[in-house]
Amino acid sequence: MKMLEESLNKRVALLLKDNRVLEGVLSGYDEYMNMVLEDVEESNESLTRKLGTVVIRGSNVVRIVPK
Amino acid sequence: MKMLEESLNKRVALLLKDNRVLEGVLSGYDEYMNMVLEDVEESNESLTRKLGTVVIRGSNVVRIVPK
Amino acid sequence: MKMLEESLNKRVALLLKDNRVLEGVLSGYDEYMNMVLEDVEESNESLTRKLGTVVIRGSNVVRIVPK
Amino acid sequence: MKMLEESLNKRVALLLKDNRVLEGVLSGYDEYMNMVLEDVEESNESLTRKLGTVVIRGSNVVRIVPK
Amino acid sequence: MKMLEESLNKRVALLLKDNRVLEGVLSGYDEYMNMVLEDVEESNESLTRKLGTVVIRGSNVVRIVPK
Amino acid sequence: MKMLEESLNKRVALLLKDNRVLEGVLSGYDEYMNMVLEDVEESNESLTRKLGTVVIRGSNVVRIVPK
Amino acid sequence: MKMLEESLNKRVALLLKDNRVLEGVLSGYDEYMNMVLEDVEESNESLTRKLGTVVIRGSNVVRIVPK
Repeated sequence: MKMLEESLNKRVALLLKDNRVLEGVLSGYDEYMNMVLEDVEESNESLTRKLGTVVIRGSNVVRIVPK
Repeated sequence: MKMLEESLNKRVALLLKDNRVLEGVLSGYDEYMNMVLEDVEESNESLTRKLGTVVIRGSNVVRIVPK
Repeated sequence: MKMLEESLNKRVALLLKDNRVLEGVLSGYDEYMNMVLEDVEESNESLTRKLGTVVIRGSNVVRIVPK
Repeated sequence: MKMLEESLNKRVALLLKDNRVLEGVLSGYDEYMNMVLEDVEESNESLTRKLGTVVIRGSNVVRIVPK
Repeated sequence: MKMLEESLNKRVALLLKDNRVLEGVLSGYDEYMNMVLEDVEESNESLTRKLGTVVIRGSNVVRIVPK
Repeated sequence: MKMLEESLNKRVALLLKDNRVLEGVLSGYDEYMNMVLEDVEESNESLTRKLGTVVIRGSNVVRIVPK
Repeated sequence: MKMLEESLNKRVALLLKDNRVLEGVLSGYDEYMNMVLEDVEESNESLTRKLGTVVIRGSNVVRIVPK
């Protein structure tokens, strides 16, 4: 889908189904909403940590918020 | 699907499977019911917050109510 | 699927997976059982409310009862 | 699938994933196991009620027992 | 899939996702692992009962054991 | 997928989504990761039992470990 | 998807839906995100163990972090 094109190389926050939030720079995606984020900070209810580059399987994504 | 065409550029409320409600202006969608909302206000049982633009993965959507 | 053709423009009750019931006039559907209902009344265990037009994602539907 | 052909216009009992049982005359089905039952009686652990005609989304079906 | 061919007309035990076990003679199947069993005995943790012929939707199947 | 080719006719341990572990000789598989194991020993938290030949529906598989 | 190409023959950490983490060298993958890891160490909340080679079904994967 084309909807993510404008967010390429920009900061986005992904909410996953398990309530994890990944915030980072969107460097790639495909038609299944699989995504690559760079410089990622991941947080859940209790903690935050830095992960660097992360590949996310699209089926886990709830919503994407450009920052 | 064509059913969402009439709601383009109008305000809609999305109910997601996790009971989150996103209300905003529908600016795009595709055949999987992936959607882009602008000027979004998200609410759940306990709180409401403003999110700006949001891309929603269609598989999380239960129902859409034009406002 | 053709099974819903006879119910077009007639009142139906949809049971969703989260036990929500939506009753309204079926004004459209597609091959995924995505549906548009008009003049909808939604109810769950505890309350009933009017929603007007509603687009329902087919993957949430359990069964449809023509009224 | 062809397996349901012999049950057309005969009484069947459907078990759904939510443990609901629908018993009625099978008047139609398609390749996704979407089905139309006529003269349906629905029961769960606690109660039984008559529903008339019902369209069932195949993804909810566990098993079908011809009566 | 071809893997079930050798079990045609033989007794098999199906384990379903809800922990139900159906034992019967495999009289048909298709590519989705939808199956028809004859002379079925169904059991769960607490009870066993005879069901005769049963059509099982493949998406509910965990494993199949030839008897 | 080709990844399972090297394990053909060798002993593997399958972890299923319900935490069941099936250990046996892989005698076949298809593109959906449906698999046939021979000489299977199945175990869960509380017990172990011998099952002989087992057909496993790929959608239940978490991971496969060659032994 | 092409996103995993750069991680081939490098160490990655997979988070699975059941919160299991598998860390190992990515030696193969396909379009469904099915993956083969070598020299795997698996950990959950309570313990860590060595598994050697592991084939992971892509549908269980949440995210992949190159190490």
